[in-house]
Amino acid sequence: MTQRFSFDVTATSGKARRGVISTPRGQIRTPAFMPVGTAASVKAMLPENVAATGADIVLGNTYHLMLRPTAERIDRLGGLHRFMNWDKPILTDSGGFQVMSLADLRKLTEEGVSFKSHIDGSRHMLTPERSMEIQRLLGSDIVMAFDECPALPADRNRIAESMRLSMRWAARSRAAFGYRPGHALFGIMQGGLDRDLRAESAEALRAIGFEGYAIGGLAVGEGQAAMFDCLDYAPDLLPKDRPRYLMGVGKPDDIVGAVARGIDMMDCVLPTRSGRTGQAWTRRGVVNLKNARHQDDPRPLDEDCTCPACTGYSRAYLHHVYRSGELISAMLLTWHNLHYYQQLMQEIRDAVAQDRFAAFETRFHAQRAEGDIGRL
Amino acid sequence: MTQRFSFDVTATSGKARRGVISTPRGQIRTPAFMPVGTAASVKAMLPENVAATGADIVLGNTYHLMLRPTAERIDRLGGLHRFMNWDKPILTDSGGFQVMSLADLRKLTEEGVSFKSHIDGSRHMLTPERSMEIQRLLGSDIVMAFDECPALPADRNRIAESMRLSMRWAARSRAAFGYRPGHALFGIMQGGLDRDLRAESAEALRAIGFEGYAIGGLAVGEGQAAMFDCLDYAPDLLPKDRPRYLMGVGKPDDIVGAVARGIDMMDCVLPTRSGRTGQAWTRRGVVNLKNARHQDDPRPLDEDCTCPACTGYSRAYLHHVYRSGELISAMLLTWHNLHYYQQLMQEIRDAVAQDRFAAFETRFHAQRAEGDIGRL
Repeated sequence: MTQRFSFDVTATSGKARRGVISTPRGQIRTPAFMPVGTAASVKAMLPENVAATGADIVLGNTYHLMLRPTAERIDRLGGLHRFMNWDKPILTDSGGFQVMSLADLRKLTEEGVSFKSHIDGSRHMLTPERSMEIQRLLGSDIVMAFDECPALPADRNRIAESMRLSMRWAARSRAAFGYRPGHALFGIMQGGLDRDLRAESAEALRAIGFEGYAIGGLAVGEGQAAMFDCLDYAPDLLPKDRPRYLMGVGKPDDIVGAVARGIDMMDCVLPTRSGRTGQAWTRRGVVNLKNARHQDDPRPLDEDCTCPACTGYSRAYLHHVYRSGELISAMLLTWHNLHYYQQLMQEIRDAVAQDRFAAFETRFHAQRAEGDIGRL
Repeated sequence: MTQRFSFDVTATSGKARRGVISTPRGQIRTPAFMPVGTAASVKAMLPENVAATGADIVLGNTYHLMLRPTAERIDRLGGLHRFMNWDKPILTDSGGFQVMSLADLRKLTEEGVSFKSHIDGSRHMLTPERSMEIQRLLGSDIVMAFDECPALPADRNRIAESMRLSMRWAARSRAAFGYRPGHALFGIMQGGLDRDLRAESAEALRAIGFEGYAIGGLAVGEGQAAMFDCLDYAPDLLPKDRPRYLMGVGKPDDIVGAVARGIDMMDCVLPTRSGRTGQAWTRRGVVNLKNARHQDDPRPLDEDCTCPACTGYSRAYLHHVYRSGELISAMLLTWHNLHYYQQLMQEIRDAVAQDRFAAFETRFHAQRAEGDIGRL
């Protein structure tokens, strides 16, 4: 096992790339989808089952973990990997995005963000230096620079000021992180939907130098078309030899479109959250199990899927346990959704390796156009 | 695999019995603890993991299932075993107990009980004949006679009248069930804490004849001492060559005391319900994970337990996920509790087989007297 953090692109198909990130905790096959384990748990899943779906890495949320159980406590207990029983790589976000969306009484200054915990009202301060310290205490393999991101739409000046603050914070993050063998620090490009601001941000990040580069500030309400417009140029502004991570994306068609534009890594709560609200993602689109049309349906969600929900249960059962509020509903649908997402990523990687990504995209959209597998 | 329902006592130690119930769906090692799968799910567990804890049989609730998704629907979908993905034996209760505790606007007559659903307000009628029909539609392996059970304390006349009504219903249940190879009908002894009424009830049931006999009307608030007083004589009133099932019991020390008095089968929601409220049952007593004293504790719940909760996680983690409302808390603690219960049953069976049940009981109580495994 390597003791260094490295990234190799092993194949391309159009702009789509296949590669592998090597870390001391294991390899991450790219394009990679990272399930979200906000509070040290991928909700409704045991970690061995997350791994069984094909996930090489999960994401942890600095904001949640710093408040409960606290980074210092996790450090004393041997780090986040041991704490949550997950020995593969972990990426942690910087807390910057969530402190602005979840915390109370936020105050943003050049220094950082002060806020009150949404859990117990206690006061905290997040700065680039504190974010780096927390992510080090957690034992994160891929650490994100501390950034700030305005909600869209916002005027250009607000976006430009915010981006430049994030770039100054990126430099402070780099200085505080230093270089730690086997661990990576990723910078985060900002700049909204403005090409010049994105270019300015990319230039600032490249001047600092990071082991990987994220595209932030998308998937925040701008819509898929606007996001894809930005992704038509944004990945090309970043170094070719480093992983490109699109934060907070997305639905299956967002993922396919992002890979087509040169993205290597993504994360999203969608498959896990949908699993708790009776929604199943399949190659033929989303199936709402809460719908009464499933109540007598003896068929599986997807007859070709090999996950436990599809091999063991009928749609009628999945409907029943959702309606009855049984926990097995969230357990089975989350497993299915993560399985489907990882299956999709494997198909994407195979298509890139065989340089047939455009054909894969065509088939992907055609299958979805067929719709759900029909009524009885 | 046998096509008949049969019971063999293979060893005794004092009044404690070891045996095996054979059914076409598999053997049930006795003394047996049956996890409760009320609404076609043992809450927070996948069925393969319920089996992995050592459970040979689970219980389903007629009252819940008749209301949602309905017995007719489960029948159309291939029966309860297929519906809930559990191919081992299932025992279903008759609905009698739960209709009296959960339903609205109950009206009790000689014919049966009419009531309104607590789910949607729809009107239903449960009679011995309807209960037998529902349990047949579900595909139950062990069917319970339809009975009625007054809450204790109640005056002797009320208990006597109720018991005699239940005995008339037991005869109607037998007539409606008939004899179905491979399936069993169990009668339910009533009579509260009155020895003469218990004897009268046992006599009535023996005159009808059942494949097994349950002791009902206990564990309804009378306390362990009163329950054990009743169990000092009640099992002996029943046929020696048929399984004796104590309904709704119980805590680990209730189970050990019941086995000591000749009980072969039990069921209780306690291990599953406790798993959802942060309580873990261990050989050293109950551990409340919600307690802040666990927040820095790196030790497992029980260092000798081989369940996933104990082999993969610290008490600090179990505390954290409970406090954070993560579903993995219920998943891990339910698994632990069922594992502990089945481990206890295996130790009980081994002790009976080796005719050292009294020594087992002494050690069981001594371990619990030591208390939890101590503070750091």
